[in-house]
Amino acid sequence: MASAPLPAPRPSLPRVLIIGGGFAGLAAARALAKSPVAVTLFDRRNHHVFQPLLYQVATAALSPADIAAPIRHILRRQRNCHVVLAEITSVDLERKLVHFVQGDGDATAQFDWLILAAGATHSYFGKPEWERLAPGLKTLEDATEIRKRILLAFENAEYETSPQRRRAALTFAIVGGGPTGVELAGAISEIAAKTIPSDFRNIDTKTTRVVLFEGGDRLLPAFPPQLSERARRDLVSMGVEVRLNARVTDINVDGLYLGAEFLPVRNVLWAAGVMASPLGASLGPGVPTDRAGRVLVGPDLSVPGHPRVFVTGDLAHAVCPGQSEPVAGVAQGGMQMGAYAGRVIASEVGTSAHPATRKPFVYKDKGIMATIGRSRAVGVVGGFKISGFPAWLFWGGLHVMFLVNYRSRIIVALSWMWNWLLFSRDARLITGPARLDISGGMGVAPAPSVADPHVHDAI
Amino acid sequence: MASAPLPAPRPSLPRVLIIGGGFAGLAAARALAKSPVAVTLFDRRNHHVFQPLLYQVATAALSPADIAAPIRHILRRQRNCHVVLAEITSVDLERKLVHFVQGDGDATAQFDWLILAAGATHSYFGKPEWERLAPGLKTLEDATEIRKRILLAFENAEYETSPQRRRAALTFAIVGGGPTGVELAGAISEIAAKTIPSDFRNIDTKTTRVVLFEGGDRLLPAFPPQLSERARRDLVSMGVEVRLNARVTDINVDGLYLGAEFLPVRNVLWAAGVMASPLGASLGPGVPTDRAGRVLVGPDLSVPGHPRVFVTGDLAHAVCPGQSEPVAGVAQGGMQMGAYAGRVIASEVGTSAHPATRKPFVYKDKGIMATIGRSRAVGVVGGFKISGFPAWLFWGGLHVMFLVNYRSRIIVALSWMWNWLLFSRDARLITGPARLDISGGMGVAPAPSVADPHVHDAI
Repeated sequence: MASAPLPAPRPSLPRVLIIGGGFAGLAAARALAKSPVAVTLFDRRNHHVFQPLLYQVATAALSPADIAAPIRHILRRQRNCHVVLAEITSVDLERKLVHFVQGDGDATAQFDWLILAAGATHSYFGKPEWERLAPGLKTLEDATEIRKRILLAFENAEYETSPQRRRAALTFAIVGGGPTGVELAGAISEIAAKTIPSDFRNIDTKTTRVVLFEGGDRLLPAFPPQLSERARRDLVSMGVEVRLNARVTDINVDGLYLGAEFLPVRNVLWAAGVMASPLGASLGPGVPTDRAGRVLVGPDLSVPGHPRVFVTGDLAHAVCPGQSEPVAGVAQGGMQMGAYAGRVIASEVGTSAHPATRKPFVYKDKGIMATIGRSRAVGVVGGFKISGFPAWLFWGGLHVMFLVNYRSRIIVALSWMWNWLLFSRDARLITGPARLDISGGMGVAPAPSVADPHVHDAI
Repeated sequence: MASAPLPAPRPSLPRVLIIGGGFAGLAAARALAKSPVAVTLFDRRNHHVFQPLLYQVATAALSPADIAAPIRHILRRQRNCHVVLAEITSVDLERKLVHFVQGDGDATAQFDWLILAAGATHSYFGKPEWERLAPGLKTLEDATEIRKRILLAFENAEYETSPQRRRAALTFAIVGGGPTGVELAGAISEIAAKTIPSDFRNIDTKTTRVVLFEGGDRLLPAFPPQLSERARRDLVSMGVEVRLNARVTDINVDGLYLGAEFLPVRNVLWAAGVMASPLGASLGPGVPTDRAGRVLVGPDLSVPGHPRVFVTGDLAHAVCPGQSEPVAGVAQGGMQMGAYAGRVIASEVGTSAHPATRKPFVYKDKGIMATIGRSRAVGVVGGFKISGFPAWLFWGGLHVMFLVNYRSRIIVALSWMWNWLLFSRDARLITGPARLDISGGMGVAPAPSVADPHVHDAI
């Protein structure tokens, strides 16, 4: 298909190609706003998602549009930047081109500079078949799917007559005790205990069991141990069962296994492994990656041997000078890396600057935070540990401030006030078919064949 | 599957079964709030949708959750009412039972009184194959699908190189000149002209062509001719091409036909025919229906020969005393019919009242309104014709007031103010695969096979 994404107004300009419209890709594009380059940003979705709040969509507190915005709209005023809705299928470093799918056709684009910011997805530790049983949370589609499973679990418990099956339908297992796992566990527990009890007639949603499994010996491993313990205590006080040193060994439609131990549970959510976009590995045998598929970049975030190719964000394994651990896969890291790569290009383009003279990337850790639930959060900000209500307020303010557009800030702030005052979560929609095709991990029981439908006397 | 939706706390109470949680079904349930009956409301979705604002979701002005709420949440305080998420497959009037699908199993429920309020869906005048080419707008899923098609049309035009194909991608045809057709045409024209021009680099979205086809000789046939003409003029002034007396005879992936005339268009939306839920026809040969599948009910909305079975809302063909036309399929009609049926049951239950003594249903027409676009609407309210900005303000206030919960009212009112001030529409998300499986009616071209992907020098 002879599709030409860009009839290049000034083909003589150096071509900077950015793959991915997440935090890193957007920051890179913005850093090039005033440079004499032709920037093209590719993303397979039309929208940027504010990932730190994705769990709030999954738990019906916010709508997808509250935390997402069209990428081309975000960059509309940056006239040197084209946004292309297309999926990159491979990168050819030698020929300096990328292959992509657009509409129904394949196409190719050439670059002078490349910034890879394609992010990460879930990893099921070599068990991809777990995905349909235990969905993870990376996209808006994931979030509405998880929202649907959570809501359907209660619907199914409402009509389930077998006590065992009802119990399993009212049990949620969350695998992975990082921020996403902690946030999901807290939110589901609040939905069950505060938001929906009066909606149901046959079940007491307050009896819902939420179990959080963490393979390590504490929650939030990236946080100071003291805050891990605080998060655990807060969750326990909300009724969440926290299981540390607990490795899930198998998952099926009826429940999950930890070695010999079996937990009957219909709703399993995945917040454990993360795997970098396969684009990293596709760069070829000359480009080393770590176990999580992240590209091992140099101190200037460039790919060894390719000084004009940068890898940023969750796709990069970047170790800063004097550090032993790579930069964490968080929004701040992505933003700083993207902006760095953009600035390097901006400073070198049209000059004879030598890559060897680049100052290395230095990550400025501005802190980390995780919410646990209504009025509870933990975090490290400016070196200070914070927790409880002040931390929660700070978390809220910070996240509202970082949302990409003003309308979202207003709507999200209002929604949170509303939800906080009324224990409410108003996006409790089940969309798409009201049952799932696969019964794995959620409250739809495998269908017994019905020879003689039971007639209920009482309706 | 031995699913018991309701372990009937008081099986001795008369069982009222309501099918459908739209305006009619909800009104019926509420009218029975204080009666000694066991009410069960069935809906195949978990949410009630405020249908008059569905086109605003389809045109990215509002989020689905802004205009929808879980039915069981709406009725949570009505303790005599159970809400069941299940699809009714058939009704057996003789044996007084309904069959339904719940989860993966079939089940049956018995009733003493029945209120059918299953609504209507699109009708393609005997051409069901048009549905995938020209989606209609009845559900939240329809709305997000139409939103996706509208947004993808511009994305595809952005990369399309053939001028003809680009033109077709930037052409929208709306079939049907009732309120939904008028509202969609106005909104799409505004998106193209005001909201997104600065987002694109290769196309001028202001050149988008919106064509509204109406088979009759005026738009909004239910309105006074003067307002039809006003709506037409308003739309034309916004750049919409209005084609009256124009009957679409065929639709395919490349465009649509009006007899011999062919319009190349990739985006066709359907706002023409409406067909009652098939449940009406399933009542059996003894229950007559009209051409649109609506049940011909008596003056008390009951099914002839079945005084304890009522049909309400869009599923009913109800002619009020002294009228020649049936009550229109609008929200007001549904609400009033549902409330009437509920009140009849409330007054007769536990008494020996004879159906012959029922006062007939009388529809109180409180007026009709349709928006045309930013600051423009037409309507008849209390016998007065209104149009232009005052009508638009009134329309907005009215619709906000009727939204089902307070939060929605606040969010919708704020969103509208925001959108009005900034020409903004902030729910412009393409979710699900960023291309459609079927190319019908939208901007994804049928795939030519690509032997040699074209390399673009300029990106």
